[in-house]
Amino acid sequence: MSKKPPFPPKPRDVLLVVFPGFQLLDAAGPIAAFEIAGRFAPGAYRVRIAAREPGLVSSSSGAALPAEPLRARGQFDTLMIVGGEGTREAMQDAKLIAAIKRIAPRARRVSSVCSGAYLLAQAGLLENRRATTHWRRAPDLARRFPSVRVEPDCIYVKDRNIWTSAGVSAGIDLALAMIAEDLGPDVAANVAREMVVYAKRPGGQAQHSALLDLDVARFAKLNAWMREHLHEDLSVDRLAAEAAMSPRNFARAYAAETGVTPAKAVERLRAEAARAALEDGGSIQQIARRTGFGDPERMRRAFVRLYGAPPAAMRRVLRRA
Amino acid sequence: MSKKPPFPPKPRDVLLVVFPGFQLLDAAGPIAAFEIAGRFAPGAYRVRIAAREPGLVSSSSGAALPAEPLRARGQFDTLMIVGGEGTREAMQDAKLIAAIKRIAPRARRVSSVCSGAYLLAQAGLLENRRATTHWRRAPDLARRFPSVRVEPDCIYVKDRNIWTSAGVSAGIDLALAMIAEDLGPDVAANVAREMVVYAKRPGGQAQHSALLDLDVARFAKLNAWMREHLHEDLSVDRLAAEAAMSPRNFARAYAAETGVTPAKAVERLRAEAARAALEDGGSIQQIARRTGFGDPERMRRAFVRLYGAPPAAMRRVLRRA
Repeated sequence: MSKKPPFPPKPRDVLLVVFPGFQLLDAAGPIAAFEIAGRFAPGAYRVRIAAREPGLVSSSSGAALPAEPLRARGQFDTLMIVGGEGTREAMQDAKLIAAIKRIAPRARRVSSVCSGAYLLAQAGLLENRRATTHWRRAPDLARRFPSVRVEPDCIYVKDRNIWTSAGVSAGIDLALAMIAEDLGPDVAANVAREMVVYAKRPGGQAQHSALLDLDVARFAKLNAWMREHLHEDLSVDRLAAEAAMSPRNFARAYAAETGVTPAKAVERLRAEAARAALEDGGSIQQIARRTGFGDPERMRRAFVRLYGAPPAAMRRVLRRA
Repeated sequence: MSKKPPFPPKPRDVLLVVFPGFQLLDAAGPIAAFEIAGRFAPGAYRVRIAAREPGLVSSSSGAALPAEPLRARGQFDTLMIVGGEGTREAMQDAKLIAAIKRIAPRARRVSSVCSGAYLLAQAGLLENRRATTHWRRAPDLARRFPSVRVEPDCIYVKDRNIWTSAGVSAGIDLALAMIAEDLGPDVAANVAREMVVYAKRPGGQAQHSALLDLDVARFAKLNAWMREHLHEDLSVDRLAAEAAMSPRNFARAYAAETGVTPAKAVERLRAEAARAALEDGGSIQQIARRTGFGDPERMRRAFVRLYGAPPAAMRRVLRRA
């Protein structure tokens, strides 16, 4: 397919696949990008929303989108599988996975947003491919599908005709990259301007999700060490020794560069580790000990302050997710 | 209302108002942010989608969302009016405007995304308030509603209980700012991480929409001068003289800093001006002369190359928008 289509180009059919519990924004981001591309290149794209069970498909937010049946007929341009809380159940839906496998060869280009990468992987479409997904899921995707070369810090990854994107809002970046390939970088830049997003984000997903909030260059190594030693005493004195600074200098420099005191940083790193452990299971007591909170009541207070909910309630929510 | 609600907080009802031709992403961004906030603070928000004509309401992309009737009953937390191509017609819908006027006093906080600000302004809710909207619409909003203090380069603006946001994706930033106010900055940061967006964007909407692509510090003033003199000869010699540099040095420095040659930059600035003029009316011949393309055929070729469509087709599309 040539990069400069004649005007008006034949509409490129984008088949966007949803399922119960999909993330509405995973779908709405690309839908908006392709729609707005049509203002600059009329008729360039036609987005169709499809699901194994057609009709109104509920997203995890409750808001639903109407979807047509997912059928394999004729050639089309782009297959796009979204992600969301419902991905785990969708992975178990053998008919959906079979449909994706059957339909993918009919598309010029196959793609996923966020945890939609799991469905591509389950359908065997990511074997020996470079791919990305939501940062929270990247280690798990790599573990479950060892043949997938997961790149955890990308906003999107293109490996030949397979494109995968990072979490949620990265679906917009994915669609913009496709628009740039199809219609040129100027059209993509115009679409980005209309949407008030970067045409091409500077940096990877970690940067944009502020994952590295604390990991300013100067203290990134220290934070990595702290993450390994959460169950130990992490007093300012101990941290200062590790950083080879005087306690006073260290406390001042750490707060100046990260915006939080060392004590708050320790608490935040512990809460992050505990939150991740909650998803994997284990008793709250064990987790509190392992992450250095020691006593579950201290962990509870930190959770309520940082996340607005105690550990047990968080676990119920995370398990549902 | 206190900033640290007890857990579990009573759900804050967010009433999100849509209308035919709304922009799906204007709605889906805040819906996702409030939904994901619920993972960290269970039960914190409940988003309801409402429209004057309930049922499936079609967005400009064709994808529809189911909406309940827009009724004024009881108190609720947040009123949020989205924008989109359908805003112009929605402004003429006297019943919708009356409903917004009637409902707004029942909300603790009143807000709009993108061109949704027009509907708040039409309902008299932005009088003497600071507000923002999509960058493309900001001058028009200020002209139509002289009592509104429009701030064109903000991602969002909060004036007492009235919050307005810039275009499309800025609805996410607006919702994150509300979440930070309601549940604290840590929860908002966690939501942003899940969504892979900045918790707080560095810079205004112009920066993120790459409006200033060419306006690197060194040549911003020259570009501004060029925008005022598009109808004149803008050869490299002339521009170099204006920049007080030798033509050779100027051409090299301009390309190095902006990524495009001076000739391409002139063409892009002319096309931008012509595109804006197309929306306001006037013959294509006049516009071609005024913006320095001179001959309409040159303008047509630039449009096809930059936007994928000739001026007449663009005008039809822009008029519909």
